[in-house]
Amino acid sequence: MIVARLQEHAARLAEQRRIVLRNRRLALGGLRLDLGAQRADAQVMEALLAWARSRGLRQRFRELCAGHPVNNGTAALHTALRGTPAMHARGTARRMALQLTRALEFADRIRQGRCTGPGARSFTDIVNLGVGGSELGARLLVDALGPARGAPAVHFIAGPDGLGLERLLARLDPRRVLFIVSSKSFTTWETLLNARRARDWLQARQGTAAGRLQMVGISAARGAMREFGLSPSRCFYMEPTVGGRYSVWSAMGLAAMICVGTRAFQGFLNGGRDMDRRVLQTPAARNPAILLALFDAWNIGYLGVHSRVLLVFDERLAALVPYLGQLEMESLGKPVGQGVPLWGGPGYAARHSYFQLLYQGGTPFAADLVLVQRAPAPQLQSRRAELLRRAADCARVLARGRGSGSGRCPGGRPHSILHMRALTPRALGQLIALYEHKVYALSVLWGSNAFDQPFVDAVRR
Amino acid sequence: MIVARLQEHAARLAEQRRIVLRNRRLALGGLRLDLGAQRADAQVMEALLAWARSRGLRQRFRELCAGHPVNNGTAALHTALRGTPAMHARGTARRMALQLTRALEFADRIRQGRCTGPGARSFTDIVNLGVGGSELGARLLVDALGPARGAPAVHFIAGPDGLGLERLLARLDPRRVLFIVSSKSFTTWETLLNARRARDWLQARQGTAAGRLQMVGISAARGAMREFGLSPSRCFYMEPTVGGRYSVWSAMGLAAMICVGTRAFQGFLNGGRDMDRRVLQTPAARNPAILLALFDAWNIGYLGVHSRVLLVFDERLAALVPYLGQLEMESLGKPVGQGVPLWGGPGYAARHSYFQLLYQGGTPFAADLVLVQRAPAPQLQSRRAELLRRAADCARVLARGRGSGSGRCPGGRPHSILHMRALTPRALGQLIALYEHKVYALSVLWGSNAFDQPFVDAVRR
Repeated sequence: MIVARLQEHAARLAEQRRIVLRNRRLALGGLRLDLGAQRADAQVMEALLAWARSRGLRQRFRELCAGHPVNNGTAALHTALRGTPAMHARGTARRMALQLTRALEFADRIRQGRCTGPGARSFTDIVNLGVGGSELGARLLVDALGPARGAPAVHFIAGPDGLGLERLLARLDPRRVLFIVSSKSFTTWETLLNARRARDWLQARQGTAAGRLQMVGISAARGAMREFGLSPSRCFYMEPTVGGRYSVWSAMGLAAMICVGTRAFQGFLNGGRDMDRRVLQTPAARNPAILLALFDAWNIGYLGVHSRVLLVFDERLAALVPYLGQLEMESLGKPVGQGVPLWGGPGYAARHSYFQLLYQGGTPFAADLVLVQRAPAPQLQSRRAELLRRAADCARVLARGRGSGSGRCPGGRPHSILHMRALTPRALGQLIALYEHKVYALSVLWGSNAFDQPFVDAVRR
Repeated sequence: MIVARLQEHAARLAEQRRIVLRNRRLALGGLRLDLGAQRADAQVMEALLAWARSRGLRQRFRELCAGHPVNNGTAALHTALRGTPAMHARGTARRMALQLTRALEFADRIRQGRCTGPGARSFTDIVNLGVGGSELGARLLVDALGPARGAPAVHFIAGPDGLGLERLLARLDPRRVLFIVSSKSFTTWETLLNARRARDWLQARQGTAAGRLQMVGISAARGAMREFGLSPSRCFYMEPTVGGRYSVWSAMGLAAMICVGTRAFQGFLNGGRDMDRRVLQTPAARNPAILLALFDAWNIGYLGVHSRVLLVFDERLAALVPYLGQLEMESLGKPVGQGVPLWGGPGYAARHSYFQLLYQGGTPFAADLVLVQRAPAPQLQSRRAELLRRAADCARVLARGRGSGSGRCPGGRPHSILHMRALTPRALGQLIALYEHKVYALSVLWGSNAFDQPFVDAVRR
């Protein structure tokens, strides 16, 4: 019945160029969400909200956050990592909190030079060896928030090629480098290949015992870390229940903690918790995660949208595209449901390359635009103002169209705009948690599981 | 009639899981193209080739390369840049060749320390200020081919944020840096913003006259470069007829010439010319550009494919994704035709993030896999062998499916595999030229113009 009603609305709207959505702006702490360019009017909203109610979305959020089993009989628990109480999984939550605290303290000691390499020299370089969920979150935080004062340089090596790793090793001082080996299973081929190379390189220069102290492990596989030769004081444990793509809030964020600093990382966690609370407490009609999920489901299921484009108008957020790409595509790319590709990049690069397709191409897509109001430094604010003016102009053309003849852009491209007042740790935490909750809501609407990866688990090693 | 026949074939194949394509491998010099996982049999091929013939594709290639007007009354001429004779545009081709030679000689002098900054110190750092077509090609070459011996470091600044530029300036020695300002129109907002900042920074440290000699311009707008204050000896001229996304073969590749060296750049040009010749001389049934175009048109128009995924199994080729993304989406994202998004990235990262969607998601896509047989160094070859084994396994699963129950991947994802024997300049030139010709062939099949960008021209400044 809901399907038929939404199909009717889609047919009714097909001919309308301009559609007015009321109450289109939501203030969300450090974020503002503008939904005015979604192709929905009051009747569509009513039907979508009825769908959300029929799926018991708000109750499902409560179950997720409370630690009820949502993933083939187990809990998800990424919300517990940022301090949202999970009453039905207190034991696991406590163990996770302990590892997170250990990681934060360790990061402090590294950055402050209290935990050192041989000869009491502080570490100048941190190398994160990990791929997918063991890389993308930490990388996003490092790029977006930048290094704290006195932080060592952080490098990410994800691939199995070896060239990038060898070039990096050639520039490093073996006494002042710390390797972080991140792999939930501790069997990831690429990561273990690079970890063995790093271990051999260190031990050839530092000896076996010292080499061991310059390697850190993060994994759910305690035994495998020990077998690899890591010292227990250098091992951080993940709970198997948190998936890689939800693990940035855990000890898996260690490289980021060292770089951005404990205070910033704590701010990021707090931002995630803010969003949990907001999503738990806000009725569907004003609930940002529910609304974003409903618009995705509407765009993909009823308006024929084939992909989602993420345009970030701040170079510090370039890593948001692969990060949210993994989150959305691994969570929603299932036999059940309608997961679509998420692609995109920095908005300025897009304007000078693929905007031609977005403006005039026939391929139906929906977009998310992320804008940051405040420049990273006061003297860069006038550039920022002009950038924001241009981004707003892009959004206007996507929504309303412009031009005539062969240069005509028809408009009618649905999109949401996320305004961040400033790119603070807290606002970034809010943003990531918002997308996590949107993905979960979408999986509930579609009847899929947002937390497994059935085929990849079976095939990748 | 062709449409109806192809629709019939698509319906006929819909129920078939395994489809056998004969003569599926093409040897192309340093490349090998494997089309065995495209969903087409002999009857489909016959219908597709009839379509190509009806569009006179081979004749259209001859017109393109000879310099006939293919873009609203003007020629395209990127093929002339790599030495394929353009008889109908000899004057323009000669002017382009002159500028290319000037750029190659200038690059040699920079790299060999014969063209220096103040105090006869050689340049240690080159900063390319440019975006879109003024960045992506040079960046691809630098990443893929690596620096020649003694080459200065090359940096790319594309965006208007300012933070990346300021951080870079803070580490540079103002006496030993050369800025390249690349903008076809010399009005690109981002590029001019950064160029003015670089000019002010240089002049504050070096004085006005010296500062002028540390800035190079590449543009079709001679007057604008002069007004900006660039010395004529430091200006390289593009012809308006070559579009930004086809300009890597021109003086626009200067940053790459300096880094990879003149010999490598010449090898790249030769590879492009090899492919021109092959595409001009090979009958449609074995013509790689025509076959790739036909499969794209077949996949998108008849098998319902919504996007193209490019997976590169070599970290040096990561920049191929934005490069070919611009080429395809700007050339084919038109009101006429059926351009789709091109997205993707390194294969190893994909396996650990969005392969779940590719294996099990419901979204129809086609893929190109690019594999390089030879590792960048002999001691990395065993890693490479395992990487290739894993890539082949991914390809097998995409094509034939695997698994059962909730972990089942249905297979039937059409894809092409491009094997490069080694990542040489010549093979890279062949590869880029192959995609350019494929894009042109597709525009001919669809009746669109691959060389304009009507809306973006009107809107971007």
